Amino acid sequence: MSTSHIDDWKAERLALNDLVMQYAGLTTKRFFSLDGQAYRPGALPASTKELLGLVASLVLRCDDCITYHIIQCHEAGVSSAELEEALSIGLVVGGSITIPHLRRALRAWDELQGAPSTE
Amino acid sequence: MSTSHIDDWKAERLALNDLVMQYAGLTTKRFFSLDGQAYRPGALPASTKELLGLVASLVLRCDDCITYHIIQCHEAGVSSAELEEALSIGLVVGGSITIPHLRRALRAWDELQGAPSTE
Amino acid sequence: MSTSHIDDWKAERLALNDLVMQYAGLTTKRFFSLDGQAYRPGALPASTKELLGLVASLVLRCDDCITYHIIQCHEAGVSSAELEEALSIGLVVGGSITIPHLRRALRAWDELQGAPSTE
Amino acid sequence: MSTSHIDDWKAERLALNDLVMQYAGLTTKRFFSLDGQAYRPGALPASTKELLGLVASLVLRCDDCITYHIIQCHEAGVSSAELEEALSIGLVVGGSITIPHLRRALRAWDELQGAPSTE
Amino acid sequence: MSTSHIDDWKAERLALNDLVMQYAGLTTKRFFSLDGQAYRPGALPASTKELLGLVASLVLRCDDCITYHIIQCHEAGVSSAELEEALSIGLVVGGSITIPHLRRALRAWDELQGAPSTE
Amino acid sequence: MSTSHIDDWKAERLALNDLVMQYAGLTTKRFFSLDGQAYRPGALPASTKELLGLVASLVLRCDDCITYHIIQCHEAGVSSAELEEALSIGLVVGGSITIPHLRRALRAWDELQGAPSTE
Repeated sequence: MSTSHIDDWKAERLALNDLVMQYAGLTTKRFFSLDGQAYRPGALPASTKELLGLVASLVLRCDDCITYHIIQCHEAGVSSAELEEALSIGLVVGGSITIPHLRRALRAWDELQGAPSTE
Repeated sequence: MSTSHIDDWKAERLALNDLVMQYAGLTTKRFFSLDGQAYRPGALPASTKELLGLVASLVLRCDDCITYHIIQCHEAGVSSAELEEALSIGLVVGGSITIPHLRRALRAWDELQGAPSTE
Repeated sequence: MSTSHIDDWKAERLALNDLVMQYAGLTTKRFFSLDGQAYRPGALPASTKELLGLVASLVLRCDDCITYHIIQCHEAGVSSAELEEALSIGLVVGGSITIPHLRRALRAWDELQGAPSTE
Repeated sequence: MSTSHIDDWKAERLALNDLVMQYAGLTTKRFFSLDGQAYRPGALPASTKELLGLVASLVLRCDDCITYHIIQCHEAGVSSAELEEALSIGLVVGGSITIPHLRRALRAWDELQGAPSTE
Repeated sequence: MSTSHIDDWKAERLALNDLVMQYAGLTTKRFFSLDGQAYRPGALPASTKELLGLVASLVLRCDDCITYHIIQCHEAGVSSAELEEALSIGLVVGGSITIPHLRRALRAWDELQGAPSTE
Repeated sequence: MSTSHIDDWKAERLALNDLVMQYAGLTTKRFFSLDGQAYRPGALPASTKELLGLVASLVLRCDDCITYHIIQCHEAGVSSAELEEALSIGLVVGGSITIPHLRRALRAWDELQGAPSTE
């Protein structure tokens, strides 16, 4: 039931985001702000937006981005069946080259299933 | 209100799919079958699945794939506001390099808005 | 000495940008604004920034983006020798898969050499 | 039985390669030479090397590169069954995003089947 | 003569594949089956198919996929000279961005050269 | 003020480059030579060429390549403001998918700021 792998990941992400902000000029700062804004609920609910971010990250094969959206999907109340269907679309679109990332996506998701959704 | 650009695109796609099937071995045939299956409604509705396919296609920057999913989103009853929010996530994830594809996605969508959803 | 290919390209780009703005929500609008801001001269001159945008576009293999930055490099006073050296870095980093885009980049550049830099 | 589409493609490629050489510095010239050298028969026969170039081009989704290697495979005596198996590996590795390129690859291959291998 | 790095890699891959199958729906299960089928000998021998998978993985820059196909090439009896020629095509097509993956590909290959081919 | 992470990275890179050269055929050897040549000062100074290599590596999302060019930029006398502006162009072109790489790029850069430029 441990989420320590994910907790470690979150801690490193926060520390490095602080470092980015120390160096960041206006363009970088505004991009980070925009990145947060894009996932706010609107015509589409937050859960759908997080699934969109997850599948985009899977086909572009970025493990950090996948981990981030896996956590966000969990917080937004996405079910395992919904998550798996979304990932399977990414698999078909992106091909077998996405499989190693799919494995790690489900490892992170599986870790979160043992943890209460409380942050 | 013309959809002739989209109609031409559909006709060429069908003709070339016929050609693929003339050459296709078992692996290719099964892949094409799997590609259709991935978008059937399940835990997620067809409209969400088409938006997932659309955003995956946008960040991977494939105009043909984008056109296909734009048509499928239209058939599945996606609204312009929902479509635009999904595309904006693809834009933020995939960056300015997706902009030319975003332009053509909205041109195809705009053509479809003038046409009754009847095919 | 004709630049009609580039002029046609510019006209279509403007028309489609207008269409994007008709559909655009806040995220998309802010992204387009940010995209313009990133290339304004700062610690690096505009010419260097345009070369950075050009090489990024070459290795990501987006013809529209390449054409845009080729025009911007021309306007910023980049020389043919500077342009070629930048493209050769993109060629080595991105490999032979970039060659078709390199060809079209130089076709656009060659067209611009016959035209006064006046827009 | 016409190969005019392929003939047009070859003519434009040659014209643009000439233009590249007019601008090319030493790095670009040496890269083009190296690109030719990589496909010469050695421990692997030319036909296998062309199939490797073709599948690499398919998963990277470059139509010009695919057309080039389709022609080279034809010249190297690759059979339709061998070509289709190679393409099906590219399809599985690269996913459905490669399908539009697979269609155009087989259109070019089909054109060549009607033509004697004489160039 | 140790292959412990590769043995560890194989063990983790198997454990995560088990996890994928626990969550997998029909689309994912069929994709995994198709992935195995694509490399079975047919018009092309297994060794050529594994080289195709390897070069596709190199230009798409997936270390896990590269390690997998390096092992498969070893089992299929590919020689070091054949492997190196195939990798050099991937290097030229995919550019210097593939070099870190090429280094790790040859590290895995070198480990396998000290081990009898017995699994 | 430790640069041990970067020192470790350099040591592994050198060891693996030696291994590559043990296996390398003529194509691979010539590619490595060309890779070095592309960054030599010419019409563009070394600092600009390293920034071009850095931004190309960022949008293609290769951590090893980014680390290499971060070190080279430091050696070439690039300032933190210049580096950040170049990275921000990569961020806008390549999108949020580049953010994890941007974080690690600035971590490497930050390590180098504590070290005298003496290698």
